[in-house]
Amino acid sequence: MKKTKLRFTQALMSKGVLSLVIMVGFVGTSFAAQFDAPYYEFQKKHGAEWAKEDKAIDAKLAALEKKFGKKPNVVYILTDDIGHGELGVQGGGASRGAPTPQLDRMAHEGIMLNGFYSEPSCTPTRVALMTGRHPARTGLTDVIFPGNPAGLSPEEVTIAEILSEAGYVTAMFGKWHLGEGEETWPHNQGFDETLFGVYNTAPYAWNTPGDKFFWNNKSTPEFFTRYKLNGLMEAKKGGKAIEVAPLNLETLATFEENTFKRSIDFIQRNAKSEKPFFLYWASNFVSMFAVHPDWAGKSAQGTNSGDQFMEHDYYVGQLLRTIEELGIAENTLVVWMSDNGPMYDFFPESSSSAYTGGKGDVLEGGVHVPAIAWWPGIIEPNQINAGLLQVTDMYTTAARIGGALDQLPNDRVIDGLEQSSYLMAATPSRREYIFHYSGANIGAIRVGQYKRHLAAAHGGLPGKDFYDIYKDPKEEHGVMAELLWAWVPFDDFIRKHNELIEKYPHRKPYRSDIEE
Amino acid sequence: MKKTKLRFTQALMSKGVLSLVIMVGFVGTSFAAQFDAPYYEFQKKHGAEWAKEDKAIDAKLAALEKKFGKKPNVVYILTDDIGHGELGVQGGGASRGAPTPQLDRMAHEGIMLNGFYSEPSCTPTRVALMTGRHPARTGLTDVIFPGNPAGLSPEEVTIAEILSEAGYVTAMFGKWHLGEGEETWPHNQGFDETLFGVYNTAPYAWNTPGDKFFWNNKSTPEFFTRYKLNGLMEAKKGGKAIEVAPLNLETLATFEENTFKRSIDFIQRNAKSEKPFFLYWASNFVSMFAVHPDWAGKSAQGTNSGDQFMEHDYYVGQLLRTIEELGIAENTLVVWMSDNGPMYDFFPESSSSAYTGGKGDVLEGGVHVPAIAWWPGIIEPNQINAGLLQVTDMYTTAARIGGALDQLPNDRVIDGLEQSSYLMAATPSRREYIFHYSGANIGAIRVGQYKRHLAAAHGGLPGKDFYDIYKDPKEEHGVMAELLWAWVPFDDFIRKHNELIEKYPHRKPYRSDIEE
Repeated sequence: MKKTKLRFTQALMSKGVLSLVIMVGFVGTSFAAQFDAPYYEFQKKHGAEWAKEDKAIDAKLAALEKKFGKKPNVVYILTDDIGHGELGVQGGGASRGAPTPQLDRMAHEGIMLNGFYSEPSCTPTRVALMTGRHPARTGLTDVIFPGNPAGLSPEEVTIAEILSEAGYVTAMFGKWHLGEGEETWPHNQGFDETLFGVYNTAPYAWNTPGDKFFWNNKSTPEFFTRYKLNGLMEAKKGGKAIEVAPLNLETLATFEENTFKRSIDFIQRNAKSEKPFFLYWASNFVSMFAVHPDWAGKSAQGTNSGDQFMEHDYYVGQLLRTIEELGIAENTLVVWMSDNGPMYDFFPESSSSAYTGGKGDVLEGGVHVPAIAWWPGIIEPNQINAGLLQVTDMYTTAARIGGALDQLPNDRVIDGLEQSSYLMAATPSRREYIFHYSGANIGAIRVGQYKRHLAAAHGGLPGKDFYDIYKDPKEEHGVMAELLWAWVPFDDFIRKHNELIEKYPHRKPYRSDIEE
Repeated sequence: MKKTKLRFTQALMSKGVLSLVIMVGFVGTSFAAQFDAPYYEFQKKHGAEWAKEDKAIDAKLAALEKKFGKKPNVVYILTDDIGHGELGVQGGGASRGAPTPQLDRMAHEGIMLNGFYSEPSCTPTRVALMTGRHPARTGLTDVIFPGNPAGLSPEEVTIAEILSEAGYVTAMFGKWHLGEGEETWPHNQGFDETLFGVYNTAPYAWNTPGDKFFWNNKSTPEFFTRYKLNGLMEAKKGGKAIEVAPLNLETLATFEENTFKRSIDFIQRNAKSEKPFFLYWASNFVSMFAVHPDWAGKSAQGTNSGDQFMEHDYYVGQLLRTIEELGIAENTLVVWMSDNGPMYDFFPESSSSAYTGGKGDVLEGGVHVPAIAWWPGIIEPNQINAGLLQVTDMYTTAARIGGALDQLPNDRVIDGLEQSSYLMAATPSRREYIFHYSGANIGAIRVGQYKRHLAAAHGGLPGKDFYDIYKDPKEEHGVMAELLWAWVPFDDFIRKHNELIEKYPHRKPYRSDIEE
């Protein structure tokens, strides 16, 4: 039933192929990758400047490698459904009854990534982070509910696979949510060690008033059996996953703590090893509907999700302090980010956004999310950068930091842009456009400060859903007339984007239940 | 026509009267003042703790006075119509096309006051800051439009009068907007020197599409004559105001720069003098509809107000650096604050708010505004405090820092609470309630995390306008049923508040055109 994974082949990277594709001029690190069409417009304009920046970054990375004897470690922390404005540094935190002193400190010690964009929901953002590609390209576009055979195709090349090839030790702890079939799970997608739940939105999301947790119902065990919902899984690369704890309220309540502890353990074990490490800690907070008993009632917000935010914040602080105490902070990039905006349907068990819209929307509230980068000694403290970043950029940037740009596949479009100079040297973003996918379709396109909705967000009045995000961050005043000039370049980008899809078609949705 | 000002009399402060009123137990600084009724409930609960805090603050202030030979300087910077979330540190700034690096730096060097509340509009907040009282008590409740004879009563005791009595040199530069009659102007309200405009919303606010500035119309000169709109006025205490520049587009465009330069000049002249200084710089940005030519087009927001924000930000930075260079930073408190939320009616020439509502509303968008306190060496850097503050608190706190608590009038209710320990030692706020006045009436009342709207904000459905602000910062989910228990204590506070008004009635609206 499971197909053998066709690994990305080095053959494609032969000199012959390289000469046929566009060369991106990194000093000492020439590589071939196919980015999206609009990228090359901006590359033409800024290429010389970028080459200069790259040279400076090369020097920084070389100096670090000399000092630490290995490539920098990379830690990505992904959270669940936290909206823009929720951190204390952004005006939330204690103003919402859930102080976030550790994340605030992380921001003060690093960069607030105020221009960070995710995909509009859970599975899509996870696909995008793992593959550097918009979900539509990978065939996995929607949130996976139990019983859905969809999953992350083994043909996709994850950042864990890229970094493994480059000599990294890799680990994933937390909420995977990229398929029910074992071949789609992290230990088969490039991670050396894992402790995870598929946690495909069920059953904790299905609370009803007066019956807060669905699995308290008698019907739940049947439901579990019927859909084979897995609990807490553990696996090593090349091995089989075993369920180390069943799916119930108690195991969910300690899931954050367990995956945090495993993260700490992983960091401690690998801090002084010869190999650099890549850690992907995917918190299920603040959409877990369960919190560690020690944290229950801790937030003045009076919600489980507020308590979760505080528990998560505490662990992030512990994680950063651990990295410092091990003496590896200067060689470790940590990026904290949210997977999408607030899940308002769970109100009051939900985050909030300063923008209009929430999870599932390509309005700012759905995709403009909080994110922080931290790298003491490399990233200057107290920085704020509003340049555009998209979650896919974290894929390409990790490859660059890991010295693995030449491992990027070139037989497909990579949406993620290389942003290490943005992070490490506070230079402008290389991204001036974003295709905001809504499922399989482009929901909106952003270029500079302008944003055009294609799937109309406000009742379908054509044309009015054209916004100047600088003037109108809440997308309330559609100004088609004023922005009519932008119709043409927007159309041009969309056309070129679609032409490239013809050349590199979207992957057929992968299904675990069909032999290919 | 003008009445003689009845100055606040020291006679009321005699020992006989003092013994009759509640004594607030500051170590070494006993004083008598009548705060609002709910205050005393919280004082009963926290009095002992506050006394301890006060002792620590007394010691800090005494050490400072020993070092600098005078009381600390106080600088209040008030801006116009800037909403919560607009600063770069809060996720705005460059994300809105108008970077605010200097205000961001101010926040990083000081405290973000994330629980700061203004009155809902321009004149009311200015009254509140000057008198420490909600506008309704002073008889001046509404935004003054040209021709309106209302103004700040000479019977009110301004913070400038309090600090003058305490030996401060005082100055006000900027937008006054507290009356057209000269007796209501700053040089007759306690300020030694002033350069100001009454700038009572006209005429720059009255733009129409296609005819951006009203005074470009031929009709404007007649309008000016009819309503005797003053231009840029200069005056010294005891003197007569003279118009140093007429009201026109050119003088408005340089108003910010002029009042900033006078602020710098005032600071430089008084930095090393024997007396401490109090400076009130009331910027008309971002609602000026005119910007210095050097700043026109500087913001990528493409709005005049965006350019204004950048010009203002630059000046704030210059002001802070001047204070540092003069070696008086450790003896100078600077508080930057907005007078109310965004004036959306001016869109796109408007700020934005992360909350619901804007200027004129008692919804969070109208009154929950950005504010920062800065005092290097006293205030620790990178602090965030979400404890409630109301603009009136800046009155009482300045009196305390100036050693002038015993100058507070005790024949009226003072709404402002003493918050120097909050600012100087990061202790919790002493404010757990706010009466949000809407004109002459209570629009909403906040107690802890709960807020009850009295003037219904959402179409008048009674009872639904009852919110848990921690859970629901956007005031979207009225939860009367859930918060019904809070009805009683809220009613109790309102009743006691109203009983105190019977004892200390609201001042009759003061009019410049009627002899009393």
